Formats: sequence, structure tokens, C-alpha cells
Amino acid sequence: MNRQTRLGILTSGGDCPGLNAVIRAVVSHATLTYDWQVFGIPYATQGLLERQMIPLHVHSFDLRGIDPLLSMGGTILGTINKGNTLACMDEIISSYQALGLDALIGIGGDGSIAILSQLALQGNWQFIAIPKTIDHDVALTERTIGFDTAVNTITDALNRLTFTAASHDRVMVVEVMGHEAGHLALHSGIAGGADVILIPEIPYSIETVCGHLAELHDRWQRKFAIVLVAEGIHPAHDANYLPHQKPSGSRGQYIADCIAKCSAYPVDTRVSVLGYIQRGGIPSALDRLTAAAFGKTAVDLIAEDQSNQMVAWQNGRVVAVPIAQVCDRSPLAVDPDGDLVQTARALGIYMGE
Amino acid sequence: MNRQTRLGILTSGGDCPGLNAVIRAVVSHATLTYDWQVFGIPYATQGLLERQMIPLHVHSFDLRGIDPLLSMGGTILGTINKGNTLACMDEIISSYQALGLDALIGIGGDGSIAILSQLALQGNWQFIAIPKTIDHDVALTERTIGFDTAVNTITDALNRLTFTAASHDRVMVVEVMGHEAGHLALHSGIAGGADVILIPEIPYSIETVCGHLAELHDRWQRKFAIVLVAEGIHPAHDANYLPHQKPSGSRGQYIADCIAKCSAYPVDTRVSVLGYIQRGGIPSALDRLTAAAFGKTAVDLIAEDQSNQMVAWQNGRVVAVPIAQVCDRSPLAVDPDGDLVQTARALGIYMGE
Amino acid sequence: MNRQTRLGILTSGGDCPGLNAVIRAVVSHATLTYDWQVFGIPYATQGLLERQMIPLHVHSFDLRGIDPLLSMGGTILGTINKGNTLACMDEIISSYQALGLDALIGIGGDGSIAILSQLALQGNWQFIAIPKTIDHDVALTERTIGFDTAVNTITDALNRLTFTAASHDRVMVVEVMGHEAGHLALHSGIAGGADVILIPEIPYSIETVCGHLAELHDRWQRKFAIVLVAEGIHPAHDANYLPHQKPSGSRGQYIADCIAKCSAYPVDTRVSVLGYIQRGGIPSALDRLTAAAFGKTAVDLIAEDQSNQMVAWQNGRVVAVPIAQVCDRSPLAVDPDGDLVQTARALGIYMGE
Amino acid sequence: MNRQTRLGILTSGGDCPGLNAVIRAVVSHATLTYDWQVFGIPYATQGLLERQMIPLHVHSFDLRGIDPLLSMGGTILGTINKGNTLACMDEIISSYQALGLDALIGIGGDGSIAILSQLALQGNWQFIAIPKTIDHDVALTERTIGFDTAVNTITDALNRLTFTAASHDRVMVVEVMGHEAGHLALHSGIAGGADVILIPEIPYSIETVCGHLAELHDRWQRKFAIVLVAEGIHPAHDANYLPHQKPSGSRGQYIADCIAKCSAYPVDTRVSVLGYIQRGGIPSALDRLTAAAFGKTAVDLIAEDQSNQMVAWQNGRVVAVPIAQVCDRSPLAVDPDGDLVQTARALGIYMGE
Repeated sequence: MNRQTRLGILTSGGDCPGLNAVIRAVVSHATLTYDWQVFGIPYATQGLLERQMIPLHVHSFDLRGIDPLLSMGGTILGTINKGNTLACMDEIISSYQALGLDALIGIGGDGSIAILSQLALQGNWQFIAIPKTIDHDVALTERTIGFDTAVNTITDALNRLTFTAASHDRVMVVEVMGHEAGHLALHSGIAGGADVILIPEIPYSIETVCGHLAELHDRWQRKFAIVLVAEGIHPAHDANYLPHQKPSGSRGQYIADCIAKCSAYPVDTRVSVLGYIQRGGIPSALDRLTAAAFGKTAVDLIAEDQSNQMVAWQNGRVVAVPIAQVCDRSPLAVDPDGDLVQTARALGIYMGE
Repeated sequence: MNRQTRLGILTSGGDCPGLNAVIRAVVSHATLTYDWQVFGIPYATQGLLERQMIPLHVHSFDLRGIDPLLSMGGTILGTINKGNTLACMDEIISSYQALGLDALIGIGGDGSIAILSQLALQGNWQFIAIPKTIDHDVALTERTIGFDTAVNTITDALNRLTFTAASHDRVMVVEVMGHEAGHLALHSGIAGGADVILIPEIPYSIETVCGHLAELHDRWQRKFAIVLVAEGIHPAHDANYLPHQKPSGSRGQYIADCIAKCSAYPVDTRVSVLGYIQRGGIPSALDRLTAAAFGKTAVDLIAEDQSNQMVAWQNGRVVAVPIAQVCDRSPLAVDPDGDLVQTARALGIYMGE
Repeated sequence: MNRQTRLGILTSGGDCPGLNAVIRAVVSHATLTYDWQVFGIPYATQGLLERQMIPLHVHSFDLRGIDPLLSMGGTILGTINKGNTLACMDEIISSYQALGLDALIGIGGDGSIAILSQLALQGNWQFIAIPKTIDHDVALTERTIGFDTAVNTITDALNRLTFTAASHDRVMVVEVMGHEAGHLALHSGIAGGADVILIPEIPYSIETVCGHLAELHDRWQRKFAIVLVAEGIHPAHDANYLPHQKPSGSRGQYIADCIAKCSAYPVDTRVSVLGYIQRGGIPSALDRLTAAAFGKTAVDLIAEDQSNQMVAWQNGRVVAVPIAQVCDRSPLAVDPDGDLVQTARALGIYMGE
Repeated sequence: MNRQTRLGILTSGGDCPGLNAVIRAVVSHATLTYDWQVFGIPYATQGLLERQMIPLHVHSFDLRGIDPLLSMGGTILGTINKGNTLACMDEIISSYQALGLDALIGIGGDGSIAILSQLALQGNWQFIAIPKTIDHDVALTERTIGFDTAVNTITDALNRLTFTAASHDRVMVVEVMGHEAGHLALHSGIAGGADVILIPEIPYSIETVCGHLAELHDRWQRKFAIVLVAEGIHPAHDANYLPHQKPSGSRGQYIADCIAKCSAYPVDTRVSVLGYIQRGGIPSALDRLTAAAFGKTAVDLIAEDQSNQMVAWQNGRVVAVPIAQVCDRSPLAVDPDGDLVQTARALGIYMGE
């Protein structure tokens, strides 16, 4: 065709490390290999709605020839967590047409991917999704952009907190992200040497947590402990501890209070809510590599006239899976009988019933 | 003398990176150079009271010849924040004598140093202090163990938070340690590129903070901002903002709420309380070096029959200053007209009136 | 059975980060779950030959309750690169019997695994292998212990070298490990933003390398470049450049000399041979997690009376594959037409023909 | 005056981390506080000669509001190691006038500072110098930009190399920068736990090095060792070892060969030349802070009509010292009887006679 293909790209949902590396890969491959024009849509569907776009070229962010995108966290395009996309679908669709785009690559979590896919279907345009989430809860892919960096960040934090907990003989309760899924807590808890890991997928009782801490104390003379808690765990149902207290504060604080009340020996508890530092950071090598491979494949899928596919990592390869299949399955939860939960238990980590 | 000198060493107050490096230096120099016996007293004065001590030898913590003390945060001896030392001075003094110690090296903040010095004076024993505190609020020394590592930790966190704040156009309020003194916030805020730094030593008004954010927004098109807050700042006195709210939560949350109410443009605020991760971490090279130099000098001062001196860094050299002089002056506050505050302002950082 | 099972464990071949995390997982699971006795064999088959072994218990390396094994690089058991195992097979087999071991877990690269497997077959004992190598050249597994950490180390080094190369307008040639396989160079080169990646599996010509550098220079005004070279690349065959020079020095130096001679524009070349720092370092979260999962599974396989199996990562799961199959296939080379090479090319990286 | 002051800034000599942080501080203070125009001169005196300059504004390198200068190594202005400044002084002076500059801030080592100062004197223009060098060999200042980051880089490398050396029972000889001065080796060797530190300022003999290694081996059962060598050490004069060998290769290799020949027990030596990675890296918090304070003060000195002064850190404060005084004294060598050498020895590190 005579006219250059015009490819849009946007990032949607919570930011994470590796998004810029995806953008870089998409721009490089689309322009160098296919000679397309690439446009960044700022702030996800909000930018679409406002008909904004920024032309992106190879090296367009370079500083004296150094490309900062590979090692920058966050997203150069901006993002939004929750838009009113569903309420404005018609306007977004007309905006998209007004922008003259031929295809769209959207980097997002499963929620964003589902909505963007609906938009693309209704607007009748080509759409390829790239999964990103530090929560790792997208189905049908072994990797999501941002997860590996976040696991490293939390593992490093656990290392730091272990030193201070051990120096003061404290039980340190550490709260990490993970509303629906406990992958972050599970992976970093094993890597960082937690004593207890509580995740939304596995019920627990405070008595058993305290029993485990007592065993550490009595059998192994451990005077401190690290209790890792995903923010999405449910208050201990069976326990009679603190039943009247609505856990309005953090889950970490709630668990710390329960432990203080229930412990068989006097404990000094502290809480550390890691919060937003989990989202930031220089992307790990693995996240950058996955970003590059995902970005490259997304562009190829557009070139092959495919649509409504999500790029995924399966069995050591980059593949495409229909978004409809992903939506049927999501979100990906931790398998309570899977390899990693069993690994945690084999290491003596308490993970609930 | 025929009998070997018996040297005690303890760590007191909040833990920080570099304590183990001090212990390692003291043990090496005292045993290799002077052929003394060194004993670690666990948990500061509590260990003294309970007449506990652990013989320490060169390489006694080595794993296959690797000495882990240099790179381990925290303190291998354990520590306590607040003991009932003053109430038990007589018992501690008799314990000390019962342990047969000839001299004591104590690593602590200014509070601990003052108490240990009183003990030593009453017990009539030799005492040398080594200043440690991530708050850096000990007088008469340019360096305290742990400060440099903590500044690096916070600077790294600011980097991470900048990425996520910028991606979502948020005002990120970051709360760091510093009850009495704002050194941590000041140093890391300059190094980490904060837009606002609030410290206990300098009054501020929320209106001016918001005015500064508005200028960033209007003049420089900055849609995000990083507001760094020391935990010890006082609620805005003059401001009418949130007057009825006792800042029972974190100072960071209070400031975020005030900004949200006062801002000239709609802002999305978030809070990150860094908490205990500031205490942990692998010690920086500077903290290890200072630890080595302080530990070595403390042993030499004992050998020279000096007492009630604090090792200090002044003008590029390790010196000894009488503890009495330190107590007269502490705690060291940020000089509101000093080089660094002026540097922050020269960079366009708002620091209060 | 009445007698406790006696499990030996050894590390063989070049050291790498994550070995201690495997040892820790094996000891925890074998003792806590199965109540076996675990013995570490120092220095691989040399320790076997000398009939040495060290009893290993849960927490036996703890310092004040902190387990250093998770975050320590190298191997607490020691290792050797090349033993005379094949010449002493009979003695090693009698030593093994004399030590009274029931089963052996060996952590090694494909060479070590093949030899240990032969030993086990001749000695008629149970043997399970765990793959480790920073070169990632073991067949039938998507992960090997140590690889992820080494990729992160090199990626960080590329970041550092990019800054200095760009400041001085230099072509920086960086040599990394990889005698037979270019996985390290390929992964870290994509992650670290290299301009050229040369690996043993893909022929190259100096003219084309220089052509690529000229294009960077002319088309993109890039005045510096990063050329990443695996140590195992073969001297440029077709090129007439430096034909008389035996590349007795490093491959990096050879390539730098060739570029200096062949370049279309005057270049200032520098060489950085990363060397042993690639082997060291605190293990990444992924390597620790893989180490835990592999160690746990190896113990389970022993418990299930399996032998001559290698633990492997396939399709998101830990599986066992017969060592015979691994030996038939090894070493795993980079697929010149695979996803990652194509990804590198899509990013504009020159990788040879 | 009506016309805005025009301030030039350049970086000269080898690059290092923190240069961009200085540039950022100078631009901020000069434009925000004084309303001057700032121009960057690319490639030091070469840019002057070619009459090139780049207008620099606050935030001119920002990416979506994120300022990359704080955390970028190297220099955004480019630099040269050796120009032919002395041969072209007249042309440079006319170029400077042609560019219409009122004053110049030069960031460099002592060599660059001396030359730039001569230029300024002959050209009769205002000049303020800021000391940078990872070698730390500028007189009259306790800090130079880049040194702290480089010490941290080497300390981290020593940590990595210790793990691999210990795993294989090797003597690892590590060569670091420092042609004239051993500050880098001394600081990082203490921080990183080296067993031997050889620097240009202190003579050594291979026999004594080997004697120290033998004592580690015999007395402490240490089977590995870390020998840290500054690149500027002189071949062992008194030793008869390898007398015929011109140390044409690295000093590290030479020392390793000498040790292999001289050792009392069989040793397996390896060499690691750290090279250019020492120059790179994200600047440490201390280097960024010093950069900010130095940059701010340099601008103030220009405003106060001072010239031929070097900004320096003395006794916890930023001061100005006449460049003439610096030139009289440079380069700053390690004091063989100073605190730090004595500290190294107190820790049992061999440092020569």
C-alpha cells in the first residue's frame, strides 16, 4: 500500500517497570522493519477520547545517543487506572477513526485487555495486547511485564527487613501488593526467606500462624520472624482474634495485631507496608527481555493481519493466544497445590491450610 | 600485665547498617594488634544486667573463610531501643564487675552514649563511644555509622517513586525517618530530586507548599511531584487546613490530605511511608570505611588509657572528642541557613520559610 | 526402614549464584519432611575421592537466626572445575560406599552431570542432577541456576559502560562468558541495549560489523557504540583483517583491533573483559526461586526411588528428565532463527549473517 | 547590567558519575536564582576551539517531567581526555570571546583545572573549577565528584569476586584504577574486605605478600585470598621474581604471576581487571549531593566576581580555594602513615612496608 501503516500504542492500568522497554521495541521493529508510523496515545483510553497522540520515532527519546527507555521504570506515555471507557465507547471509537490509526497495541493487565478488546471489536479495528502486571494474574502466559522486577524489589526489601528484625528480636509483618492473587508474595517470600506467607488463595488461621512462630522460637531458637502478607488476604474467619475490629487499616497491621494478641510468647511486632516502591525501579534484565520479545511479536502479529490476540510466554517461546480465551480464564490465581506452594512448604514456610 | 585485657563491646539503640563492620574492626585490631580478649554483650545494657557475654574472635563468624560481617546489616549482638538502664544502674555496675571486663566500647546514638557514659563514670570503668544513627543527629562528628547507607536507600526509593508518580500524574508524599532532625530528608531529597522537602527544623505552610506545586504545574508543565517529609515535622500551625484532625496517622498522610484540600489544581495524592527498610540494607562503602576507622581508633583510645571519649570524623580525620562536649551540644539539627539547605533552594526545592 | 537415609550433595564445575540456595532447599526438605541425614561433599568428586563429608542441618549456617545461604553467591561446599574423575572411577565408587551414602544430588553443568551419572550407574547408586550454569547451555530445561543473575550482572555492566562510552564517543567492545553458547551475550545484549552481539553460533564478518557501526554513525548520528562479544566466537574467517594475528589475547581485544582497522570513520575503541564478576553476586530472586523448586523436587525424586534424572523447568513447571536424554542433546546452543535472535534483529541489533 | 550574563560550562578529562548532577545544579541555580543564560561547551576545550555551544535550560533534558540528569552517569556534554589545548591557546581564547561568554565553570581533574585556569588567566576571563576524579587525587578537598560511586562499584565487585574465589580456593588478584594515587584501592579494599592492598605510594615485596598469604593459609585456614592492586604500582623492585618480564600486560597479571611463582603453598591465581565499569554507574547519593553543593557554590562564586578558585569540601563545608594553591600541591597521594592505612593494617590487611 502507498500510505504508511499508522500504528497506535498505549499503556493502561497501574504502571510497572518494563513498559518503556515494550514501547521501544514496538517503535524499533515497526519503523525499522516495516516502515510504519507509530503514535503513542497518552493516558490510555483518556488520550484516545481526547484525540491525542504523539509521533514516536526510533531514538526519539535519546540523550546524546543514550536511549533511556530501556532502564526507565513507569511509562513515558502516562497511564490511568480506571477510566470511564465503557460509558464512552462510541466517542472513543470515533476518536480512534479520527486519529486515522490502522491498528493498536495495548499494554495492560487483564481488565484493560478485556476492555480494549471489546472496543476494538466494536470499532472493527486490529488490536494486539501485551500483558503487564506486577501481580502476574493474567491467564495463559508464564510471564507478565513488571513481575520479575517487583519480585526482586520485594526480595531485596525482605533482606533489609530481616536484618533489622533480627537485631531487635521482632516479628516483622510485611504487606505486599496482590489483591486477588498471591504470586508476588509467594515468589518473593521463597526468594527472600520469609517464615510465613499468607495469600488470598489459601485460608489461614491466626492460631496456626502463631503456632508456627512458636515452633521457630522453641525448636530453632529463632527470636525474630518475617511474616509476608498479600494485601488481598481476608481477615481470619475462624479466629476469634480481634473479631470486632474492622481491618480498616492495612492487612499487615491487622495481622500484626492478631499475632501480638495470640502469640504463645511475648512478641514485639512491627509492620512494613511496601506500597508504591514495588511499582518502581529499573527493570530487571528478564523484564526487559520479555518486553523486547513481546513488543516485537505484537508488531509481527499486526503485520500478519491478526487481531484480538494477546502475546504470551509459554514453554520457552513467545506465542499468541486469543484474548477471548484469556478473558474466559482470568485472573490467574496461585494453585494451592502447585509446585511453588509445595516448595514453600518444603522449606518450612507456613502458608495456611 | 600478665592477664589479657578483657574488652567488652555492645550496640545500643535502633539498629543500622555498618554496626557489624564496627564490631569486626574492633575484634581484629584488639586481638591482632594488642592480643586482648573481646567479648560481645548482647542486647546492650540488658545483656550487661543479665551478665551475658559472648567471646568474639577474628574470623569467628566466617563461613568457609568468607567474613559475612562486612556486608551484613543490623547487629550480630542484638540491641534494644529503650532499656531501664537508669533504674538499674547499680546492678549493671556490679554485673560489669562480675564479668571481669576492663573496658567497654559502646556503639550508639547520642542518648545511648550519654547513658553509657554515666554508667562508666559511676562504675569507674574505661568507656569509648562510637556514634551510629541513620538520623545523623550526633554533635561534633561529620559522620555517623548508618547514615550514608540510609541516604542511599531513600534516594533509590525516590527514584522508584518518581517513575510511578510521573506515570500517573500524582503528587507522591514520601515520609522518611527523622524525629528531631531532618538530615536524612535533606540529603536524600537533594540526591533524589524531590520537589519539596519538609523537616522539623524549618516551619512551613501548606499554602506555600501548594503554591510551589502550582508553579511546577503551571510554569514547568510538571504534572507530578515528589514531596519528602521527615516524620518529625510539626503539623502546619498557621494553616487552617484540617485543623480538627489530630495527625494520628502518619505525617505523610496528613500532608497529603492537606495538599489535596489546598491545591490550586485537582491533584491525585498518594503516600509512601518508607519505614523499616530505611534501617536495613547492605552497608555502603562509606559506612564500612567509617566503621573500620572508628572501630580501630576506639581500640587505640582504650590502649592509650583514655575514657569517656567519642570517636568522631572531623575535617577528613578520625579524632576523639570528650563525651561531655557531645552531650552539651546534641542533638545536631539541620542548620536552616547552612550550605545544604541553600543548595536545595538553589535547585528550586521548596523547604519552608 | 530404621536407619535414617543418608543423602549426599555436592556442587561441581564453575561456581555461580544460587548454589547455596539449592543446598539450603535440599537440606530443609530432606530433614524437615523426610527426616533424612544430609551430608555435603566438599569439592565435588575430589571430596568423594578423599572420603570427606560435612553433616548439614537446617539452620546450620545461621548467624543469630539469619540464614546467609539464600543471598550468598558461590558454594559453601567448594567446587572444582576439572577433576580426574574418569581416571579414578573405581576409587570414587569405593569411597562413596565407604561414606555410607544412600543417594546423591549433584549440582553441575552438563559435563559434570554426565560424569556423575556415569559414576552413579557404575556404582549402582541413586543420583539426581540439578542443572546450573551461567552459560545456560544445558538441554531440555528453560532455566539453569545462575543464568538469570549473570544476565542481570552483565546488563548492569552494559549500562555503566554505555555512559562512559557515550561521554567519550568510543566503541566499547565488551567480552562476556560463553565458550560454546551465546545465551548470556544474547539475553544481556538485548536487555542492556547493545548495538552488536556476536555469539559462537552465528558467523559474522568484520566488514558487516563495521557497516552497521557506520550506519549508526551516519544515519542516527550515534558517536559511540556497544559491541558485545561472547568469548567463544571464532576469529572472523572471511575477513582479511588482521589475518596474521593469532588472537592470543581476548576475543574482545581482537574484535576491537579489527574494528579499528576496518571502520569507515575514525574510531576510538576500548575493551572491557567482564571476567569473574559475572560468576559472583547476590543471587537474583528468580535464581533463588528456581533453586528452591529444583532442590525440593530433587529430594522428592530420591524419595520416589528415581535415579539418573535431571530436574528441569519446562512450560512453567518443574519436571524430571532422564539424564541420558540430556546427554544426547547437549550443549544447548542459541537457535539462530529463534525468537530471541529475531527479537534482537527487530531492535536493530547486528548479530551476524 | 541589561544584558543577561552568559555562563559557559564544560566537563574535561575522564568521565565519571555525578558530572550531569553538577551540570543540573549549575543550570538550575544560574537560571532560577540569577536569571543567567547557561551554555554547555561540548568536548571540553575541543568544543571551545570549534566554537560550539548548546543552550541549557532548567528541565531541558526532562522526559515527561522526569529529570534524567541526576541518575545518569557520564557527561551529557561529552568530554576528552587529552586535547592539544596548550598548542592552541590563542585560538581557544579568541573562540571564547567569539562565543560571547562572561564566565566559565570547568569540571575536571587537577590536570584539566590547571590548564583551564591558565587559559582563563591569559584570556582574562572569570573561571571557577569543580574537582572531579574517581582517583580522588586533587589536593585541598576531602571530596571529588565520582569517587564515592567508584568506591562503591569496586566494593561490590570485591564482594562478587570473594564468592567465586572462595568457592574455588583461588587467589584472586583484582586490578583497579589509580595511576598515581591509591585512594580507590585503599578505600574499597577496606570496605570490601581485601587481604592485600598494593598502591603506588607504598613499596612492597612479593615475598612479604606471599608471606601474608601463607599466614592466612596456615594460621586461619583461609584457602582463598583477595589481592587488590592499583594499576599504578611499580613492579616489585627488590624481588628477584620475574625480573626479566616487562610487565607489558596488566599489573594485576604481573602480580598474579609473581605470587604463583613465589607462594609457599600451591596456589591457583586468577586476575580480574575491573576496567571501565569503574567509571560508569548511577551516581551514589553522596556524589549527587556533593555535585549539587559544588555546582551551587560555583555559580555563587561567579556572582561574587571571584575567579580562579576551585570549589572544595573541607571540614563539613563547601569552600573556595585558589587554584594556584591546588596546583602547588597536586596530586594528592595516600599518606602512608595516615588514618586509613593504619586502619587497613589494624584489620590485618597487608599494605607493603
